[in-house]
Amino acid sequence: MARINLVELAQQRARQHLKPGATVVDATLGNGYDTLMLAEVVGEQGRVYGFDIQQQALTATRARLREAGVLQRVELIEGSHADMAALIPEKCHSRIDLVMFNLGYLPGGDRGIITESKATIGALNSALSLLSSQGAISIIAYPGHAGGDSECELVSRWCDGLDGEMYRVERVVPETVKRPPPQWFWIGN
Amino acid sequence: MARINLVELAQQRARQHLKPGATVVDATLGNGYDTLMLAEVVGEQGRVYGFDIQQQALTATRARLREAGVLQRVELIEGSHADMAALIPEKCHSRIDLVMFNLGYLPGGDRGIITESKATIGALNSALSLLSSQGAISIIAYPGHAGGDSECELVSRWCDGLDGEMYRVERVVPETVKRPPPQWFWIGN
Repeated sequence: MARINLVELAQQRARQHLKPGATVVDATLGNGYDTLMLAEVVGEQGRVYGFDIQQQALTATRARLREAGVLQRVELIEGSHADMAALIPEKCHSRIDLVMFNLGYLPGGDRGIITESKATIGALNSALSLLSSQGAISIIAYPGHAGGDSECELVSRWCDGLDGEMYRVERVVPETVKRPPPQWFWIGN
Repeated sequence: MARINLVELAQQRARQHLKPGATVVDATLGNGYDTLMLAEVVGEQGRVYGFDIQQQALTATRARLREAGVLQRVELIEGSHADMAALIPEKCHSRIDLVMFNLGYLPGGDRGIITESKATIGALNSALSLLSSQGAISIIAYPGHAGGDSECELVSRWCDGLDGEMYRVERVVPETVKRPPPQWFWIGN
């Protein structure tokens, strides 16, 4: 599936980009797969800051990191990635080597699309302000669901708006493929 | 979009099926759109039991219901819908007129697919045991992402396994359409 491959592609690229001792941000913990990869790549001298607004995401990620024995390299923060610049110690500002976003799906529909998109742009701007001179940002965005279309377009336009002399933007937009639609079942008498 | 339409279709059908005073279950609160519709349809004499494992879902739903002035008709329960039979008062057993599921997406990927599917089947069996003689179950399932394919097939097979003399199953499976794939952006130097 395209989705899985982009996650792997982003992880591969992150591995190539990072060196042991790096300081990185996982802006969207989710279930902590990216976080674990980052913690392993940055090594014992590195540092990972991870954000999620869902308690469940922090719990799942914490368990995964503890199991892999890398929890002490990671600071898990319950909060919006839009506030990352405020929540990351000042000594790390302009020293972040990579910020990873996996914008994922909104569970259950079309809640607060505008707020979400605003928060995303806020977070991207925060991320940019934190980067070291060699730093990078990786973003996976999901169109094709309520909120996702506008979010993906917003990200795309944000990339277009970046200073081309300072930043190089690469995009991977897989071909549109057929994907099965949702199904509805009604069980009655 | 197919997804939105199925949500509307399920809501329409629920409205046709229910009468004021009904007792219903929203097995997957999400952001509370179904819950609000159910609370409005069952009226002041009706009762809605709503489940979600995410605190955030309960908070969002509570706010939505309070705003609409229907919060007192709804009991919001932080817990898995797999436990619904245990969490709903015994006086309501065999008296539930409708159980609605919107299985939605798992944010961020392939966590605990087996557990999730097990929980879903457990919840469907629970729902069945709670239904009144005229009761019904509505399920929206989402294939096309990690975990969703197997979940959708499991739901489909569960429906196939129902006693055809007791239950009538209807399915709406929209045609497979082209949907845009995820996109990846890399911003570097």
